[in-house]
Amino acid sequence: MPEAASVTRATIGDSEFDRDTAVTRREPGVYDIDLSAGWTIINAVNGGYLLAVLGRALADALPHADPFTISAHYLTASQPGPAVIRTDVVRTGRTLSTGQASLFQYDEEGAEVERIRVLASYGDLDSLPDDVRTAAKPPVFPPMDECFGPEDGPAPVDGSSAITDRLMLKLDPSTLGWALGAPSGKGEMRSWFGLADGRDADPLSLLLAVDALPPTAFEIGLKGWVPTVELTVHVRCRPAPGPLRVSITTRNLAGGFLEEDAEVWDSADRLVAQSRQLARVRLG
Amino acid sequence: MPEAASVTRATIGDSEFDRDTAVTRREPGVYDIDLSAGWTIINAVNGGYLLAVLGRALADALPHADPFTISAHYLTASQPGPAVIRTDVVRTGRTLSTGQASLFQYDEEGAEVERIRVLASYGDLDSLPDDVRTAAKPPVFPPMDECFGPEDGPAPVDGSSAITDRLMLKLDPSTLGWALGAPSGKGEMRSWFGLADGRDADPLSLLLAVDALPPTAFEIGLKGWVPTVELTVHVRCRPAPGPLRVSITTRNLAGGFLEEDAEVWDSADRLVAQSRQLARVRLG
Repeated sequence: MPEAASVTRATIGDSEFDRDTAVTRREPGVYDIDLSAGWTIINAVNGGYLLAVLGRALADALPHADPFTISAHYLTASQPGPAVIRTDVVRTGRTLSTGQASLFQYDEEGAEVERIRVLASYGDLDSLPDDVRTAAKPPVFPPMDECFGPEDGPAPVDGSSAITDRLMLKLDPSTLGWALGAPSGKGEMRSWFGLADGRDADPLSLLLAVDALPPTAFEIGLKGWVPTVELTVHVRCRPAPGPLRVSITTRNLAGGFLEEDAEVWDSADRLVAQSRQLARVRLG
Repeated sequence: MPEAASVTRATIGDSEFDRDTAVTRREPGVYDIDLSAGWTIINAVNGGYLLAVLGRALADALPHADPFTISAHYLTASQPGPAVIRTDVVRTGRTLSTGQASLFQYDEEGAEVERIRVLASYGDLDSLPDDVRTAAKPPVFPPMDECFGPEDGPAPVDGSSAITDRLMLKLDPSTLGWALGAPSGKGEMRSWFGLADGRDADPLSLLLAVDALPPTAFEIGLKGWVPTVELTVHVRCRPAPGPLRVSITTRNLAGGFLEEDAEVWDSADRLVAQSRQLARVRLG
C-alpha cells in the first residue's frame, strides 16, 4: 500500500492525543484544559482519556514524570468543554513521588463540580533495573489483518462514539460475538490497539489504552453503559514502538458490580501495564 | 475437642480486631487511634491492619458503612503508637459515597507526618441484588488439618511478627517451599484465614485479610521486606461466617516492582474480595 506508507505518522509530543490532553498551568499546581469532544464513547467522555489528562497534570506537578500506579474514583460524568485540575503534592521521595489531583467542571452558576479524584505515585521508568521474572505470557492473538475494527461493519452500539476515529482498534473475532447479536457469555475482550494518527504509546497513553475497548459486559450479554466507579492502573515498563495488544477480562459480576482487568502488552512482548476497575452494570 | 468447644468465640464488634481498629472521634471527620503493636509483621505495622483502621474512620465519616473499593498509597512506615486520621467527604450519593482519609503520626518535634492516604467509595452491601454471574472458581485447597501455620514449626522469618498471634493462618503446604529453604519459584501463596479469637469476617476485616499472608515474593525466592506502594481492595459481598480462603498471586516481577493479587473466598464459596497491590522488592 504505497499510499499508506507515505502518510506522515504523528509522534509522541505532536499528535491528537498530546494536543487533546495538554494542560495549561494557571498557577502552581492548577491547570486548565478544554476536554475534547473527540474522545467520547456512547456520548460520555472516555474514562481513560480523562485519566490521561489528570496523569499529565500530575506529571507536571510532581518531580517524577511517569505514573507507576494511579487510582481514580469517578464521581460525576464529565462533559466535553472547560475543566480545571487541582493537584496536591503529597510526598516527594528519591524513587517515588505521590500526588493527588481532582478534575472539576462548572455547573450552571459557574460553581465547580468535582468529576474525578485520583491518587498516584510517580517515578522514572528508565531508572529501573532490567531484571524481569515473569510468569505472565502474552495473550494469543490472531494477526491484525484477521481482526476487525469499527470501520469493518455497522456500529453495533447506538450513540456517537467519536473516540473510534482517534483509535486503531482491531478486535479478536472470537470476542466479537456481541457485535453480531450472539455474545459468548465469557467476559473477555481482546484488541490490537494504537492511536489512529500513528503516534506510538508512552506511559500516559497506556492510561487510555486500559479503558478504550468495548466493555467485557457486552460479551457477557449486557447492554448499555457500564460506568466506572474506580480504576487503578499500574504502568510497569515504557512501551516499545508499535501496536499494543490489550486483553480485558471480567470474572465476577455480582450485586450489580463487576471488575474489569486489563493487561497491555507491547511489541517486544513485555507486560507494560495492568489495570483493574470496578464498574456498575445495569442488569436486565 | 471438648476444651476448644468451650472457649468463647469473639464476635463482630467485641474482639481484638475491633478494639485495635477502634477510632475515637476528636471532632467531625478527625479521629484518634493508638496503633496497636499486636499487628506488626517483621517489625512493621501490617498494611492491611492500617487499611482497616482507615476504613473504619471512613465508615463513620460517610453515610454508607461498607467499603466497596478502597485505594491506599503508603507513604512512610507506620509505627505502633498514637496516630490521627483526617477524613474528607468527597461526594455523597444514594448508592455510593466517596471519601478520602489520611493517617498521620508525629515526628520528634510533634509535627504530623503522613503515613498513608486513601480514596474510597462506600455503599451498602446488603442493598445489592442477588444476581451473580461468575466465571471465578474457588481455589483448590487441602483441608485445614493438612495445612500448616506459624505454630507448626520454627519461625522461618527473622524479626518479631506479633500479628501471628492475632491470626489463624493455615497455609497450603504446596506454597510453603520457602519456609523449608526451597521456594517453588511460583508466585503463589494460599491460606485458610481467620482471626485467632474466632471473630467472624466482615467487610472491614477483609481489608486485613488481603494483606496478611506471607508475601508471594518468598515463593519467588526473594527475602526481606516487600513494602507496599499502593493497595486497592474491592469488597464484593458480605462474608458468611466461618474461615476464609485467601489466595495471592504474583505474575510479573520487573524493574524491582511486583504486583500481588489477592482473592478472598468465604465459606459459602463466594468471592467476597479482590485486591491488587504494587510492591517494591529488594533484589539480591
